[in-house]
Amino acid sequence: MPDMPWSATEKKIARRVFDAALQSELADIMVDFKTRAARANTPDDLWAIQAHLARVQRDLDRKYDYRYSMLELVLGRLLFEQRIQMHDLAGLNADRQARICHIASL
Amino acid sequence: MPDMPWSATEKKIARRVFDAALQSELADIMVDFKTRAARANTPDDLWAIQAHLARVQRDLDRKYDYRYSMLELVLGRLLFEQRIQMHDLAGLNADRQARICHIASL
Repeated sequence: MPDMPWSATEKKIARRVFDAALQSELADIMVDFKTRAARANTPDDLWAIQAHLARVQRDLDRKYDYRYSMLELVLGRLLFEQRIQMHDLAGLNADRQARICHIASL
Repeated sequence: MPDMPWSATEKKIARRVFDAALQSELADIMVDFKTRAARANTPDDLWAIQAHLARVQRDLDRKYDYRYSMLELVLGRLLFEQRIQMHDLAGLNADRQARICHIASL
């Protein structure tokens, strides 16, 4: 599919949706961390938490890629993961919404 | 200083002192981690904990080196840090005790 330029309005919507999804995911990560930390009893638990956080940080960096060339894929993944909903994408070009929806269904 | 062979008795003493120091340090690390985890409020706090644990793990691996060729240095450092006391070394060769004490004073 050829790249479809993002209008200023679309960029604003995408940024808001992207940021909200990231904040929501970070909040979940924090809750999960607090649970793991409270349960940690042994040095091995600590090193497991360290490895887990390193992986989470790397995965987040890869997943939340705000290049416009990647953004449909990113939003499609977030839609698939139900981190965002279709109605969050209201205001985006209709073809783009269809493409994002398609990506989420793959 | 030339290497001085470790007798079986000395090895037993060294292993006990070494393990006790490591366990005591790990217990301190756990308490410190629980404090940091309880205070963590932001994603940056999480990544700081991740980086801190990675550093702690690397430092421990380097510090607790149980090769006999390194053990006087290791025990000297533990003595300097007051992680162990001179009386913990009772039963080691007197010259070795003096060397460890000297290392601790450097």
